[in-house]
Amino acid sequence: MRTVYLDNHSGRPLDERVSEAMLPFMKEYYGNAQSMHSLGAFSRDALEQARSRLAELINVHPEEIFFTSCGSEANNLALKGIAQANADKGKHLIISEIEHVSVINSAKRLGKSGFAVTTLPVDRYGLVDPEQLKGALRPDTILVSIQHANPEIGTVQDIAGLARVAHERGILFHTDAVCSCGIIETDVARLGADLLTLSGSQMYGPRGAAALYVKKSLRLTPQIDGGIQENNRRAGTENIPALVGLGRAAEIARLELEENRQKVIRLRDRLIRELPAKIEHLYLNGHPERRLPDNVNYSVEFIEGEGMLLLLDGQGICVTSGSACTSKTLKMSHILAALKLDAAVAQGSVTMTLSKYTTDADIDHVLAVFPGIVKNLRDLSPLYAYFIKTGQRQEAGPGTDYEHDQGHDAGDNVCESP
Amino acid sequence: MRTVYLDNHSGRPLDERVSEAMLPFMKEYYGNAQSMHSLGAFSRDALEQARSRLAELINVHPEEIFFTSCGSEANNLALKGIAQANADKGKHLIISEIEHVSVINSAKRLGKSGFAVTTLPVDRYGLVDPEQLKGALRPDTILVSIQHANPEIGTVQDIAGLARVAHERGILFHTDAVCSCGIIETDVARLGADLLTLSGSQMYGPRGAAALYVKKSLRLTPQIDGGIQENNRRAGTENIPALVGLGRAAEIARLELEENRQKVIRLRDRLIRELPAKIEHLYLNGHPERRLPDNVNYSVEFIEGEGMLLLLDGQGICVTSGSACTSKTLKMSHILAALKLDAAVAQGSVTMTLSKYTTDADIDHVLAVFPGIVKNLRDLSPLYAYFIKTGQRQEAGPGTDYEHDQGHDAGDNVCESP
Repeated sequence: MRTVYLDNHSGRPLDERVSEAMLPFMKEYYGNAQSMHSLGAFSRDALEQARSRLAELINVHPEEIFFTSCGSEANNLALKGIAQANADKGKHLIISEIEHVSVINSAKRLGKSGFAVTTLPVDRYGLVDPEQLKGALRPDTILVSIQHANPEIGTVQDIAGLARVAHERGILFHTDAVCSCGIIETDVARLGADLLTLSGSQMYGPRGAAALYVKKSLRLTPQIDGGIQENNRRAGTENIPALVGLGRAAEIARLELEENRQKVIRLRDRLIRELPAKIEHLYLNGHPERRLPDNVNYSVEFIEGEGMLLLLDGQGICVTSGSACTSKTLKMSHILAALKLDAAVAQGSVTMTLSKYTTDADIDHVLAVFPGIVKNLRDLSPLYAYFIKTGQRQEAGPGTDYEHDQGHDAGDNVCESP
Repeated sequence: MRTVYLDNHSGRPLDERVSEAMLPFMKEYYGNAQSMHSLGAFSRDALEQARSRLAELINVHPEEIFFTSCGSEANNLALKGIAQANADKGKHLIISEIEHVSVINSAKRLGKSGFAVTTLPVDRYGLVDPEQLKGALRPDTILVSIQHANPEIGTVQDIAGLARVAHERGILFHTDAVCSCGIIETDVARLGADLLTLSGSQMYGPRGAAALYVKKSLRLTPQIDGGIQENNRRAGTENIPALVGLGRAAEIARLELEENRQKVIRLRDRLIRELPAKIEHLYLNGHPERRLPDNVNYSVEFIEGEGMLLLLDGQGICVTSGSACTSKTLKMSHILAALKLDAAVAQGSVTMTLSKYTTDADIDHVLAVFPGIVKNLRDLSPLYAYFIKTGQRQEAGPGTDYEHDQGHDAGDNVCESP
């Protein structure tokens, strides 16, 4: 059966050129970058080349790049690292409602050690209002963290405008650019961020490789203590194969960004244009223009996301409903909750994220299969039957009263083993 | 030129069978283990198989295994996670002088937030005395962390005996088994540890994959907050290729442990027997019997480690002087300092760690080349000239007054960017 992978925001295929770059470091060049012998030097040179390539992609100095093992770790380092190192200046942070759970739960964790956190709402398109940010700033605010682009609804924030508001008051600005970096322009000079998170797995690079950009001379408390790696910011033996892969992925992303952007926009717009012509009561979530080039998020009324996801999977189409980290939990995502969608509409949401490997044939397959799946599910839906009979929408019943999901609650502070 | 890699404690070559297991997950099966579709389920199954294989190696339940990105992260999670979650019971920790820097600096970091840390000395062989541990226990002690085996001097602690002392007082016991797990038996039931750190890179597995064993029902505060991965203990998208590799490496290690152990012991003992016959004034560091099967650590008197390391490298022999994470810093390692060696002796130390790929021809090459290098360096040494002339040892001058290195000082709390 044909596999149509449209869950790219949960992780993208590895570019073959990236795996080719990684393999020699998996097989032959296994030296520790901290070792003084030739094999060590070889790894060290490769590590610094990867750092330079990443720096070039986002237009910063290589020594401002600090490698981590994943985007979540980098977000933890940004929030906790800045908060802990700058607590003498103030203990107030601002995030938005639609941040990644690693930002939300890092903020919650800090909330347990004396920091105050303001969570800004978003509008119906998922945008943070700069005026609301301005109003939320306090004399003790030390950090604002707003995501560049949202993986679930695709909305791209005006980071430059938001960062300006923070900087007018001398406050640091972090942006989680995991879902934008390598996909759309993430020039730090233009965005104006003081810290920026990015990840290899979103730019057709390997798992296990991510980075935090930290503007020169910022104070930051390491979160993994130990050796002197990453200029004392992140201990642990460097994962050279993965970081070499990240560097190569960054290089490819920089060279081919515009070409890939045009390509996925055309395919994405086929879905956005053609699906509503085949399926009634379909609502596009996220911003119509300020949107990732590869993101489609539809709410399909009268249907629950789980059934849709499983039937699509049965036809070889991989999508997600709710955010990647939490879809297994089957709760309504906190992103959709923040948009204040009607619960009956939100529960039938589906995110399709395209990639540079998506083809017209893939889109044809989705357009051929999806409408029939929706029809079959609606035929089973009492809500839909009621609507057809009366022309009225029934109030959402208790079965649709989904809990919002934000991963584990950092506020609990401890987890018991199973 | 022949490469003889004897720096295996800094990272071992990847077993080909491990990379074979990883490649399909790098190329084809790139689904996020949290995704509900078939590709996600495939990753999830692979992840749980890896967990089971690791659990079998150390004789614990799979749900007691929590994956991390490296041994340093796992050590941070063990110390900080236990301390933060159990601070209501007490705020005193005990470690030893020869722990890995990730243990030492995690303890230092905790020291900055109200915890007290006792650091136990070791004897001249690097052993911690159970009686001294008993004497250091306090009513508010909540955790003892003692490394299973030391990568630099090879000494293997009596973990079962030390854990018993802690358990008699109801105190938790963690052991860093990064350098022993997969190399010698690390059966948790026999060791009696409540937490144990292990890493893939020490068992011919990939970089970027490690784990912390946490005994069922222990309270532990996550250090990377975010999604629900690892049963809420460690957020971040799972690095499936690396973890699959770790699982396969654990399986191979379990099946071939005894065979490899016998093999490297024989080669190690060739070095230990034959080197002193060719080089005078050579002192074996570490314990003569309680020793990793693949570790040789010699102090070569009248010589500095750096020169020896570079000349050996020039002959294709990769070794290290001081611990792997810190040899770039060229300070005397805290391990050698803990043995209270004479500084003039300690500075000429060299660690050679063999692997299952080491051959008799490799050992022959070392035995052929090393004595000449030592002779050349001693010919340049004023200390040696003095000794030859007078038969007396000169007092170590200021040039040998090396600082101990323990990585960055976590006590500083913050690091400025370069």
